Amino acid sequence: MTITATDSALHRARTQFRDDLIARGILVPSGIDGLYGRGAIFEDVIELIDGLVVSAGRAAHGDDLRRLRFPPVFPREAFEKTDYIASFPNLTGAISTFTGDNRAHRTLLADREAGNDWDHHLASAGTMLVSAACHPSYSTLTGTLPSDGVLLDVYGYCFRHEPAVDPARMQAFRMHEFVRVGTPEQARTHREDWIPRALGVLDELQLAADDVIANDPFFGRAGKMLAANQIDENLKTELVVRLYGDLDEGTAVVSCNCHQDHFGSTFQISTADGDVAHSACVGFGMERIALAMFATHGLDVGGWPARLRSLLP
Amino acid sequence: MTITATDSALHRARTQFRDDLIARGILVPSGIDGLYGRGAIFEDVIELIDGLVVSAGRAAHGDDLRRLRFPPVFPREAFEKTDYIASFPNLTGAISTFTGDNRAHRTLLADREAGNDWDHHLASAGTMLVSAACHPSYSTLTGTLPSDGVLLDVYGYCFRHEPAVDPARMQAFRMHEFVRVGTPEQARTHREDWIPRALGVLDELQLAADDVIANDPFFGRAGKMLAANQIDENLKTELVVRLYGDLDEGTAVVSCNCHQDHFGSTFQISTADGDVAHSACVGFGMERIALAMFATHGLDVGGWPARLRSLLP
Repeated sequence: MTITATDSALHRARTQFRDDLIARGILVPSGIDGLYGRGAIFEDVIELIDGLVVSAGRAAHGDDLRRLRFPPVFPREAFEKTDYIASFPNLTGAISTFTGDNRAHRTLLADREAGNDWDHHLASAGTMLVSAACHPSYSTLTGTLPSDGVLLDVYGYCFRHEPAVDPARMQAFRMHEFVRVGTPEQARTHREDWIPRALGVLDELQLAADDVIANDPFFGRAGKMLAANQIDENLKTELVVRLYGDLDEGTAVVSCNCHQDHFGSTFQISTADGDVAHSACVGFGMERIALAMFATHGLDVGGWPARLRSLLP
Repeated sequence: MTITATDSALHRARTQFRDDLIARGILVPSGIDGLYGRGAIFEDVIELIDGLVVSAGRAAHGDDLRRLRFPPVFPREAFEKTDYIASFPNLTGAISTFTGDNRAHRTLLADREAGNDWDHHLASAGTMLVSAACHPSYSTLTGTLPSDGVLLDVYGYCFRHEPAVDPARMQAFRMHEFVRVGTPEQARTHREDWIPRALGVLDELQLAADDVIANDPFFGRAGKMLAANQIDENLKTELVVRLYGDLDEGTAVVSCNCHQDHFGSTFQISTADGDVAHSACVGFGMERIALAMFATHGLDVGGWPARLRSLLP
């Protein structure tokens, strides 16, 4: 990889931003890239943002939204049904544990004592880390949907193994999503309608955002085709905010996605008419929006615009 | 294992409770034991409980509490420093991911296609699941504490691999903790003072609770000695509520623990006087308290005592 002057300035800007956040106690370092404790102020800002996200969801959907919360791990069986290990193997988090007896445990401890790796003493725990907040929800919808389909409000921690200096690329972060499962038209409309609504939320937060057609980071050579196809079919729109000025093209803080019949066919979800259900989601990247707030309005929330300060808990 | 009449009645009671919670949409099944989605009412009850936990923390410690939030995964290096893999290997969650190239990925996919296990294509991701909310906090305290020590408020998801029918034994659950790190006296006092305070919180929730001297579920033969020692030294007090009447001895919903110098010496934390710091914590098991509420006051929150209903969000 060639390091150009811009790459280098970008790397410096990211490192500086991270170090400033840590110096203020907004983030707390864990010793590895992309994993941080969150200080009280960071969490207050998350709460501020979430208040506006929830309000936008209520304004759009009223009581039709079904609130569901999932833990950060979900069954391997549901994971296996998707093609995630084919498309994003490098971001995956598989969970293993020790299932042996006393004797096997002594062997593990002996290896550990000798400074050897001890992972091979573990076995799959039957679970995976959640990589997008909505993933655990689809297996709960197997069967026939009500005539209006369903609208879900899901919010939870996601994991993606991509250690980076940029504080906006965390290994563990929260995503608040509104998910539509129903007819192709309902799914398409959900995605289209949420682009201006989500821009509205970012506008209330006084963030300058643009919507761009985007693609997921599919793995490897085969992934290039999948990415090109996703762009051709206009299935993913990201809302981006510039955290580092002109040093890069901005950071995606919201993602609006059409899944077509991907989850409907994988999890055998039918519309009331018996067709394979389509789905779409809008996902608010809570940590990234919070970081965009600090980058835009400053690290001292006391100096933020009065309207924003009034929304802090 | 001998199944006695009581075991069997207890198993039936647990199964019935779980099925009733699912039938009401309070919990949503994931397909494996101990992992559930949470419905809106369950989350409202969690919020109700957390309001009282936060109030009790503020009443006891005012502004001395430092609020910190950690994601559900933390660095393997910090995990390795503790003896968790020696004491609780069977509860551990180690995270692995794919770090290979295109060719290695094709081999993984070929194994998967053939119905073979594909875990051996993965490598450690350098992270572990958090098993107690306070665990990630100690590595952030390495060094010398301020003269009054520190008081932390931590709240997050924990993972323990112990699949069970009993909904009160989840694989992923939230724990809200108040942690004291300082002199031996400060740590001891924290634990002792929080027993009546936590009983007060449960009393406000109109739950009948008892405090009992307890031990952690240390693994294997060597673990028996550790457990006996923990009881002898009176290092762990659990507050238990009976979810299943007289069918068992109750479910631990709060845990008050003295760690002595365990974390202080492991993470090289010193008091202002240069001694090894001691620590103690009180942990509120949020899911278990919520389930105790449903078991005690009924599955229909509309029928709960007026005082409790008034606290719902």
